[in-house]
Amino acid sequence: MAKVAVVLCGCGVFDGSEIHEAVSVLVHLSRAGAEYDCFAPDADQAGVINHRTGQPVEGEKRNMLVESARISRGSIAPLSDLKVENYDAVFFPGGFGAAKNLCDFATKGADCEVRPDVERLIQGFHGAGKPVGMCCIAPVLAAKVLGTKNGGPGVSVTIGDDAQTAGAIEQMGSTNVAKAVTEACVDTANHLITAPAYMCDAAPHEVYEGIGEMVDRTLARIGAPAGA
Amino acid sequence: MAKVAVVLCGCGVFDGSEIHEAVSVLVHLSRAGAEYDCFAPDADQAGVINHRTGQPVEGEKRNMLVESARISRGSIAPLSDLKVENYDAVFFPGGFGAAKNLCDFATKGADCEVRPDVERLIQGFHGAGKPVGMCCIAPVLAAKVLGTKNGGPGVSVTIGDDAQTAGAIEQMGSTNVAKAVTEACVDTANHLITAPAYMCDAAPHEVYEGIGEMVDRTLARIGAPAGA
Repeated sequence: MAKVAVVLCGCGVFDGSEIHEAVSVLVHLSRAGAEYDCFAPDADQAGVINHRTGQPVEGEKRNMLVESARISRGSIAPLSDLKVENYDAVFFPGGFGAAKNLCDFATKGADCEVRPDVERLIQGFHGAGKPVGMCCIAPVLAAKVLGTKNGGPGVSVTIGDDAQTAGAIEQMGSTNVAKAVTEACVDTANHLITAPAYMCDAAPHEVYEGIGEMVDRTLARIGAPAGA
Repeated sequence: MAKVAVVLCGCGVFDGSEIHEAVSVLVHLSRAGAEYDCFAPDADQAGVINHRTGQPVEGEKRNMLVESARISRGSIAPLSDLKVENYDAVFFPGGFGAAKNLCDFATKGADCEVRPDVERLIQGFHGAGKPVGMCCIAPVLAAKVLGTKNGGPGVSVTIGDDAQTAGAIEQMGSTNVAKAVTEACVDTANHLITAPAYMCDAAPHEVYEGIGEMVDRTLARIGAPAGA
């Protein structure tokens, strides 16, 4: 049985992990018989958004680890506990939290900085030849960390066909491959599997289906040789 | 195309709507081609629980409508806007919020009181012969509102096979039918369709599957004659 890690960063599309995407990852992992543990940084979110109005809530703080526990039904550990050697693969659902809490892509674009713990994690799984599955905006994390501008090999990912985000991915020294919501992009050389999810203007069941494709292809690459 | 309402009451299993269940309802509605609108009471939750520790957060208030918007990605309206004549069916996902925010079953059991707006809603859909779909602990709402002790006909529901909850349902003048996590209970006389979801100690994909059964059977009863 595969044992995998899921990295969350809050609970809600506008300031944390996108809930439909995170649940879709967990349901598909469960369906596939994979054992999973959830993790999140024990740190405050970049901000709190009132999801009804879309406006920031001034003065309120929410902790990524505490809020992410809502998605995982209480079972969660600090990201600092996630050791590459204990897991076969790692998954990053999307949501603005991936671009505001795990890095600052939402405001800095190609010039973003990735949280050092997240950067080490992506480099660790990549260096060990263990697959990384991502969806929605989360692939910018790998595009940055593993991009040629950061000394990496450059990776192929999909964030759908959003031109501005695709342009930023190119600037970071990686490549965007346009995909539809129900498709996944598989970079076999780098064991990196991505799906556009809500980067597309899609219905919940299409996002669920595309994430199923991403999860299945990521699990299928566990133990596979690079490039095969 | 069916047009249905989904009633939420916060965002998280311990103080609001259970997230996996709510997302499963939305994904299955989307897959079935049903149009849905989400609603929640514009009122504070009964409390706020730190989902990592399971402990109450003293002094913090969260509004059901604002927090539920995290599950619905911002698109939501106050429960007071939900008119029976505008919808073909209504769905109530579970989570402790159903037993703490929409009624006080979690502390009062069979002697609980249901929020008047929720009671009117259930009576309204029932009176109009429109199906009501519920899962997890939410069926206690219908068991109470439509129970013989409240002047109703008494309904058949499932909350799985939890003896204490089943006993309370009997005391309210309704009946519990033991079901497994992937099954639904269909009360054809009352157009009431229920599934145990996380009332069972089950895996996420089993809860997803059982909720699919509940959603499909609820949609199938739109326009069906009572008892057929």
